[in-house]
Amino acid sequence: MRQAYMDHIAATPVRPEVLEAMLPFFQRSYGNPQSLHSSGQEALLAIDEARAKVAGLIGAASEEIIFTASGSESNNLALKGMALANQARGKRIVVSAIEHASVLNSAKALQKLGFQTALVPVDRFGRIDPGEVQKALTKDTVLVSIMTANSEVGTIEPVAEIARICRTNGVLIHTDAVAAAGTVPVDVNALGIDALSLAADQFYGPKGAAALFVRKGVRVLPLIDGGVQEGGRRGGTENVPAIVGMGKAAEIAAAGLGQRAEATKTLRNLLTRELLSRIDHVILTGHPEIRLPHHASFCVEFIEGEGMLLHLDMKGIACSSGSACTSKSLKASHVLLAMGFDHALAQGSLVFSLLETTTRQDIDYLLEVFPPIIDKLRRMSPLYTKYLEEKKI
Amino acid sequence: MRQAYMDHIAATPVRPEVLEAMLPFFQRSYGNPQSLHSSGQEALLAIDEARAKVAGLIGAASEEIIFTASGSESNNLALKGMALANQARGKRIVVSAIEHASVLNSAKALQKLGFQTALVPVDRFGRIDPGEVQKALTKDTVLVSIMTANSEVGTIEPVAEIARICRTNGVLIHTDAVAAAGTVPVDVNALGIDALSLAADQFYGPKGAAALFVRKGVRVLPLIDGGVQEGGRRGGTENVPAIVGMGKAAEIAAAGLGQRAEATKTLRNLLTRELLSRIDHVILTGHPEIRLPHHASFCVEFIEGEGMLLHLDMKGIACSSGSACTSKSLKASHVLLAMGFDHALAQGSLVFSLLETTTRQDIDYLLEVFPPIIDKLRRMSPLYTKYLEEKKI
Repeated sequence: MRQAYMDHIAATPVRPEVLEAMLPFFQRSYGNPQSLHSSGQEALLAIDEARAKVAGLIGAASEEIIFTASGSESNNLALKGMALANQARGKRIVVSAIEHASVLNSAKALQKLGFQTALVPVDRFGRIDPGEVQKALTKDTVLVSIMTANSEVGTIEPVAEIARICRTNGVLIHTDAVAAAGTVPVDVNALGIDALSLAADQFYGPKGAAALFVRKGVRVLPLIDGGVQEGGRRGGTENVPAIVGMGKAAEIAAAGLGQRAEATKTLRNLLTRELLSRIDHVILTGHPEIRLPHHASFCVEFIEGEGMLLHLDMKGIACSSGSACTSKSLKASHVLLAMGFDHALAQGSLVFSLLETTTRQDIDYLLEVFPPIIDKLRRMSPLYTKYLEEKKI
Repeated sequence: MRQAYMDHIAATPVRPEVLEAMLPFFQRSYGNPQSLHSSGQEALLAIDEARAKVAGLIGAASEEIIFTASGSESNNLALKGMALANQARGKRIVVSAIEHASVLNSAKALQKLGFQTALVPVDRFGRIDPGEVQKALTKDTVLVSIMTANSEVGTIEPVAEIARICRTNGVLIHTDAVAAAGTVPVDVNALGIDALSLAADQFYGPKGAAALFVRKGVRVLPLIDGGVQEGGRRGGTENVPAIVGMGKAAEIAAAGLGQRAEATKTLRNLLTRELLSRIDHVILTGHPEIRLPHHASFCVEFIEGEGMLLHLDMKGIACSSGSACTSKSLKASHVLLAMGFDHALAQGSLVFSLLETTTRQDIDYLLEVFPPIIDKLRRMSPLYTKYLEEKKI
């Protein structure tokens, strides 16, 4: 059976060159990077090289990169670490309503420590109005966290403009760029942000490697207290092979990023256009233009995302129905609800996110197998039956 | 040049079978374990199998295992997660003076949140007297954390007895078993503890994979807030290859653990005996009997550990001068200071920790090259010159 993996936002495969770069660090240069002997120093050197490459991907300096084990950890470190380190400035943080669970739940954890959280709304395209962020700022606001792009609906946020507002008001600004970095050009200086999260498994690097950029001079308290690793800002033995893999993946991602994004966008546009024209009662979610180039997301009326996903899986097509991190909570996506979708429609969410290796044939295959699946599921759907009956009247 | 890696406590190489088990999860089954499609479900199944194997190594149930990215993260999760989740019982925690930096610094972080910490002393062998733990308990003590074995001096602690005292007093007990689990038999029920940290890179598994055992019914708050992973107790996309590797490493470690430990112990005893007899002014640190079987640690008078370590490295021998996590802080080991060593002597610390693959020839090689290194360094040492002059008088 044909296999077409279209779930980039959940995880990407590891590039062969990336795995190749990692392998020596499992059995040959396996020393602890904090050890003073050659085996350890080889590992440390490899980490330093990876750090420069990851920094290069986002226009940062090496010393501004803290390696972590996941985008979620980076987000926790940013929210908790920056809020706690700078709480003398105030105990209020501002986040958008469509942030990732790791940001929203970090904000909730901070509430238990006496912080207040303001949620900034989004429009029906999932766009945040910088004016709403401005309105949410008070003199005791210490930190704003607004994502670069949303993984569920693809919308790219006006982070640079929001960052300008924050700077003007002396408020720290973090952006969760996990869904964007390595897929579209992201530059910490062009954005003007103080902190930025990114994860290797979003750009063909390994799971278990991620990073938080923290601008020089910005204080952050460790989430994981321990030894001297990462300048004392993140304890624990460094995951050398994964970090090396992230470095290699960042180096490859940085080269020709714009061109590759354009190629994927052409296929994505085809997918979107054809899917909307061939299937009734399908709504594109997220912004139609200002969105990740590999990302197509929809709400399909009368049926649930999970059913579509499982039927597509039986045809060898992998996609998702929202964020993988919350896929099993079986709740309607907080992102779609914040965008004004009702519960029933939000349940019908489906996200196709293309790999660089996705082909025209993959898209054709999806467009061939998907309509019959929809037909089948709708025939079984009481909601659809009801809709048809009401239409007759 | 001959290579002899004797720095097990800093990191072990990854077994070939372990790497073999990991490889399919980089490029083939690369799905996100929280995704509902086959690629994700394959990854989830692999994690479940690894969880059972890790649980098996320490006599736990699968659902009592929370995967983390490092022993330090496990310790942070145990200390902060259990203290914060159970703070209604009290805001005092008790730890020993020779705990790992990740435990001691987690305790310090908790102090900023209103907790108090009591430090239990150790004797000159690094042993904790259970009676001292008993004395440190007050009615508002919520948590005790005492390590299973110390990586710097090898001493094994009376954790089972301490756990009995804690249970009697209704206090939670965590043990940092990072240096012990996979090297000596460790069983959560025989120990009677509520939580236990272990790390794969201490038993020939990969870096980036570790776990915290939390006994069923014991509450712990997440350190990394986010999605549904690890039962909501640790957010972030699972590091599938590393977790699979940890499972395989745990499975192999569990088989014949006692026998392998005995074989290593024979070589370690040879090393200790010969080193003490061939070099003057060397003191064995840690308990002479109740210690990790692969672990030999010394203080060498008049010279610094770092110098010995670098000279041994030039001869192809890798060892350490204390905990890798604090090796670069250039401070005398808090462990040796707590054991009553003075600063000068503590600076001369050296730890040899043998791999399973260490041979008699490796030990012979060390015993051959080490004495001339000591002679050379002592000739350069003002402290030694002074000692010799004082001796003449």
